Amino acid sequence: MHDISQYQDFFIDYLKKQDIHKEPGNLYEPIEYILGLGGKRIRPVLTLMASEVFDTTYKTALPAAMAVEVFHNFSLVHDDIMDDAPLRRGQITVHEKWNLNTGILSGDAMLILAYQYFEQYEPTVFRDLAKLFSKTALEVCEGQQWDVDFEERNNVTITEYLKMIEYKTAVLVAAAMKMGAIVAKTSEKEADLIYDFGLNLGLAFQLQDDYLDAFGDPETFGKQVGGDIIENKKTYLYIKALEFSTPEKADELQKLFSIQLEDNSDKIEKAKAIFNESGASKATQETIEMYTLKAFETLKKMEISQEKKNVLRTFGENLMDRKV
Amino acid sequence: MHDISQYQDFFIDYLKKQDIHKEPGNLYEPIEYILGLGGKRIRPVLTLMASEVFDTTYKTALPAAMAVEVFHNFSLVHDDIMDDAPLRRGQITVHEKWNLNTGILSGDAMLILAYQYFEQYEPTVFRDLAKLFSKTALEVCEGQQWDVDFEERNNVTITEYLKMIEYKTAVLVAAAMKMGAIVAKTSEKEADLIYDFGLNLGLAFQLQDDYLDAFGDPETFGKQVGGDIIENKKTYLYIKALEFSTPEKADELQKLFSIQLEDNSDKIEKAKAIFNESGASKATQETIEMYTLKAFETLKKMEISQEKKNVLRTFGENLMDRKV
Repeated sequence: MHDISQYQDFFIDYLKKQDIHKEPGNLYEPIEYILGLGGKRIRPVLTLMASEVFDTTYKTALPAAMAVEVFHNFSLVHDDIMDDAPLRRGQITVHEKWNLNTGILSGDAMLILAYQYFEQYEPTVFRDLAKLFSKTALEVCEGQQWDVDFEERNNVTITEYLKMIEYKTAVLVAAAMKMGAIVAKTSEKEADLIYDFGLNLGLAFQLQDDYLDAFGDPETFGKQVGGDIIENKKTYLYIKALEFSTPEKADELQKLFSIQLEDNSDKIEKAKAIFNESGASKATQETIEMYTLKAFETLKKMEISQEKKNVLRTFGENLMDRKV
Repeated sequence: MHDISQYQDFFIDYLKKQDIHKEPGNLYEPIEYILGLGGKRIRPVLTLMASEVFDTTYKTALPAAMAVEVFHNFSLVHDDIMDDAPLRRGQITVHEKWNLNTGILSGDAMLILAYQYFEQYEPTVFRDLAKLFSKTALEVCEGQQWDVDFEERNNVTITEYLKMIEYKTAVLVAAAMKMGAIVAKTSEKEADLIYDFGLNLGLAFQLQDDYLDAFGDPETFGKQVGGDIIENKKTYLYIKALEFSTPEKADELQKLFSIQLEDNSDKIEKAKAIFNESGASKATQETIEMYTLKAFETLKKMEISQEKKNVLRTFGENLMDRKV
C-alpha cells in the first residue's frame, strides 16, 4: 500500500499522459481545461487505494480511476451550467469561458470518454465496471434533479434530503471504491462491503460539508463560510432546525431563507444562532459521527488484513478531519 | 425477414413496454415525452433488419435497437437546446416545455440509459456493442461541434462539410446496422461491410435532405422548404455553389446568406436560382447518386443470400425515394 499523496501523484502522472487534445479543439480544449483545474482527486485516489486493499497493483486500476474522475468533471461542467456558477476551483467555469453550447457538448463528450476508459479491461471486468458506472451515473443525475426540485419546495424531509445527498454525492464515492475491488477481481461480498464503506463515508463527508459551510474556519474551509445560508440552501442543518424549533423560530428561519441581501453577515449570524439553539448543529454532528462509525463497522466485516483495515480507517479519519 | 412497417411495429411495441416512468418525475417525464413523439424510427429499424439479414431473430436485437433510439433522442434534446429550437416533430421541445436544466439533465440520463440497454447481452457482445456505441457517440458530438464551428466560418470546404455530416448523421446509421450484426454474432468482415453500407447510405440520405430542403415538394417534404436558406446554413448546395460561381455570383450568394429577413420568399428564390445556374444542384444530385451506388457496391461483397441483398437494396432505394 502507498499513502494518499503517492496515489495522488500516480493519478496525476497518468492524467497528464492522456492525449485529450484532439480535433475539434472547441470540443476537447474545455475537457483538458476542466481536468487540469486540480482538486484533491479524492475519487480516483479511492479507486487506486481500493485496488491495493484487494492485493492488486494500483496500475491496474488507473483507467477505472480516470473514468471516475472524467465522470466527476462531466457532472461539474453540467452542474455549473444549471447553477449558473461563474467559478469552479477559483477559475472561470467552462460555460462562462466558452459558452453554453460548449459546456453542454464537452460535458456530453466527457460522459462518453469515461465509458471508453473501461475498454482497457477484459470483457467481464469491462461489463462489471460499465454496469456499476451506468447505475451510479444515473443515480447522480437523479440526485441532481432532486436537488433542483428541492429548491422550489418548502417541505423537504430529512429522509428525502439524505436520499438526495446519497445519490448526488455518496454513490460515486462508493462506486469509485467498488471499481478498485472489481479490477482486483475480489469476491462480490468484499466488493459490496467496500461499496458500503464508501457510501457511509460519502454521506458523512457531505453532511460535514453542510456543517462546515456554516461553522467551518474561514482560514481552512476553502469555500466562503455561510455560502449555503446566503443562497438559501435547505441543508441538513436547516431542515433539522425547522423540525426542532418553536413555530416562531421556525417562522423566523423560513423568512431569513426567503430573502436575498447585499450584506449577509447579519443573516448568517442569525441563522447560525438558530441552528445552535434549536439543537440542529448538535444533531448534524451526531449524524456525521453515526455515518462515520457505520463506515468503520463495515470494515470489521471485511476479509482483509488488519493492516489494510487500518489504512482505510485512517483515510476515513483524515477525510473527516479534512486532512486530505 | 419482415418488411419495414413490421419492424417499425415490433420496435414501437417494445418501446411501449419499457418502464421509463420513474422518480424523480422531472427527470423521467421529459424522456417519456421525447421518446413518444414518434418519427419514422429508421435507426432502430435498421438494427432489427440487420440482425435478421445475419440470420438472427429481430427479438435478439430489440435492446440494441432501443439503445440506438434513446441515444438519437438524447442528441435531439441537446441539439434543440444548442439550436434554440422551439419545435421538434411539430411539438414543443423539451427545454421549452420544461426548462434548460431539465433539457440538459434528461439528456444526460438518456445517454446513460442507452448504455444500460446493452446490459441485457452476454459480456463479449456487451463489450462490442458498448465500444461501437462510445466511438459513434463521440463522433456524433464531434460532428455537432463542427456544425457549430462552421456557422462562424466562411471558408468551409466540401471535404470538411462531408466529414461533418458523416460524423453528425451517417455514423449512427452505420452503427445501428453494425449493432444488428454484432448481436447476430456474424464475422467481423460482414459487420464492417454492413457498417460501410450504412455509412454511405447515411451520407446519401443527409445530402438528399440538404437537397430536398431547397428543392423538395412542400406537400411531401415534412419540413419547411427553404428552411436552410432562411437560417443561412452552409449546406453542400451552398458550398458547391460558391465553388462553381463567378466571383460576382459568389459575392451575391454570400450577401444573401448574411441577412435575416421578415419575408424570405424572394431570398429563397434567388438562392435556388444560383444553386441551379452554378451547377451546384446537379453536383449535389450526382454526389447523392455516387454514395447510394457506393452503398450498393458494398452489398455485392457481402456473404449473404441474394434475397437478403435485395431487401437491403430495396430499403436503400425506398429511403432515397423517401418512402420510409
